[in-house]
Amino acid sequence: MTLPATGLVLALAGGVGGAKLALGLSRILPPHRLAIVVNTGDDEQFHGLHVSPDLDTMTYTLSGLYNPETGWGIDGDSFETLQMLNRLGADTWFNLGSRDFAMHIRRTDLLSQGSSLSEVTSQLTANLGIEHPIIPMSDQPVRTVLDTDAGTLSMQEYFVKRRAEPVVRSMDYVGAPDAQPSPSFAAALDAAAAIVICPSNPFLSVAPILAIPGVRDAIASHRAPRIAVSPIVGGAAVRGPAGKIMQELGADVSALGVAREYRGICDALVLDSQDADLADAVCAEGVGAAVMPTIMQSDEDKVQLAERVLALAADMEKQR
Amino acid sequence: MTLPATGLVLALAGGVGGAKLALGLSRILPPHRLAIVVNTGDDEQFHGLHVSPDLDTMTYTLSGLYNPETGWGIDGDSFETLQMLNRLGADTWFNLGSRDFAMHIRRTDLLSQGSSLSEVTSQLTANLGIEHPIIPMSDQPVRTVLDTDAGTLSMQEYFVKRRAEPVVRSMDYVGAPDAQPSPSFAAALDAAAAIVICPSNPFLSVAPILAIPGVRDAIASHRAPRIAVSPIVGGAAVRGPAGKIMQELGADVSALGVAREYRGICDALVLDSQDADLADAVCAEGVGAAVMPTIMQSDEDKVQLAERVLALAADMEKQR
Repeated sequence: MTLPATGLVLALAGGVGGAKLALGLSRILPPHRLAIVVNTGDDEQFHGLHVSPDLDTMTYTLSGLYNPETGWGIDGDSFETLQMLNRLGADTWFNLGSRDFAMHIRRTDLLSQGSSLSEVTSQLTANLGIEHPIIPMSDQPVRTVLDTDAGTLSMQEYFVKRRAEPVVRSMDYVGAPDAQPSPSFAAALDAAAAIVICPSNPFLSVAPILAIPGVRDAIASHRAPRIAVSPIVGGAAVRGPAGKIMQELGADVSALGVAREYRGICDALVLDSQDADLADAVCAEGVGAAVMPTIMQSDEDKVQLAERVLALAADMEKQR
Repeated sequence: MTLPATGLVLALAGGVGGAKLALGLSRILPPHRLAIVVNTGDDEQFHGLHVSPDLDTMTYTLSGLYNPETGWGIDGDSFETLQMLNRLGADTWFNLGSRDFAMHIRRTDLLSQGSSLSEVTSQLTANLGIEHPIIPMSDQPVRTVLDTDAGTLSMQEYFVKRRAEPVVRSMDYVGAPDAQPSPSFAAALDAAAAIVICPSNPFLSVAPILAIPGVRDAIASHRAPRIAVSPIVGGAAVRGPAGKIMQELGADVSALGVAREYRGICDALVLDSQDADLADAVCAEGVGAAVMPTIMQSDEDKVQLAERVLALAADMEKQR
């Protein structure tokens, strides 16, 4: 298996699934060869604090602090702060641990002092010993809003407060038209020798990134190998509401549906071994197909998938 | 022992000592007969959050949450949030517990939504089941600043960060000239049938309250009995840096020095039994003297001192 010998790998990611592959990539590539760009469409103010769920999941995953049971939050965290906030009359439907709160307090404090979200993220991740760059997709607010049969909901209202139960009719990425890619994201788009779309929700995690002006076009016209890993395996999302949302939006709940979503910005879709039978249909959509095990449980799984994805990129590069 | 049968008791208080007597008063008087006005000159922003140390000590004391070992904070609180903030590069010299943080988060959030500090305090204390009104001295910022041999320090920098070690030359209550008594404080000043200056630091806890325009004059010309309890017992502060500061400012470190400080706004100074020999000197300053046990350890001590102070007020009223 040959990995790309040089060049920057740009990974686009949402929360838990994306963080797993990003962890694998970070175990293989040195910091200067990996740019992990993370969705901030799920960011929301809770108790006056700026919470960035996907940035936090990525940060906790790469720092080793993450809770492997839940996928979010810090392992062993308590909920004393949240319980007290509840006693003090706050609406506490969004779970935030006591140590997790420190992240939101510090982020909010630094932002209020005039630092950009990129600068704050860079500082906080460095403080936790993370050497690989974790990059917010934008320093401007972009907010994923879902139009549902229960009204208009923010991503967290939909996903956490309403347990993803409402039927989704459409979604909007509010603020995206006025946003720009963060400086490091823009630089990584220019420099990328490979682009990896991690196994994250195409509509709720990846689409907000693509909605930032110039991003979709830059990827569509990019000369580097562009590989996406399907978050749908065996006709269902590995995790989260991607499958349910695809169904409600009339998409095929399968790797084929994912391929259609990524048409034009993806040279090869990585399908899980159990979806090997979909490879031809994916190729018929104009997207290449690569079949390999994609379920990541152990850290070895994460590294192995990352190695295979990078090897695929190297092969694609060679065949050009 | 007769207590005042009717009328409002206005208590002026700082942190731990003041909260002890206020607790005693709250066990005797119904909520509509007690107004506890608290120093906010020690308020400070930590990590972007509005921390009100004296309001919090009062709130935790009256709600039963307080830590009897330290006098401040919440009993059994953890420091996970603070430790994580430290890991994230924050300067964490000011101790804040994880549940304590909830108070500051909620206060800051409500303030940022446009509520006044009075309104926020009223809401937070009600949420904790406190029926007696805890009233910030002002809704405008007043900040106690100390000129010391180690430079200009905020109250918390002096007291906590520098462990009250620098020599104090003078102090200033920044913002006081532009501040007003909070609405409930102003109303209590008008309605008070007795005024109790709790055993708090005269310079750091009571003086900031008196520095608000109109407050000293209103008390100086008030017709209600005005009683102060000396925080200096046996030539030393019961707690905190009051004795050291009085010495550095050239004041007598004794109940006599306290009497001089309160001349003109106090009809009777309550001296601890061990300071009975100072009664004549206090009277010579034009301040009446009453001798009784003032050290409050148990809750019974607090109630007993409150009863005696209220009985003294009733007697003073009768003798007019």
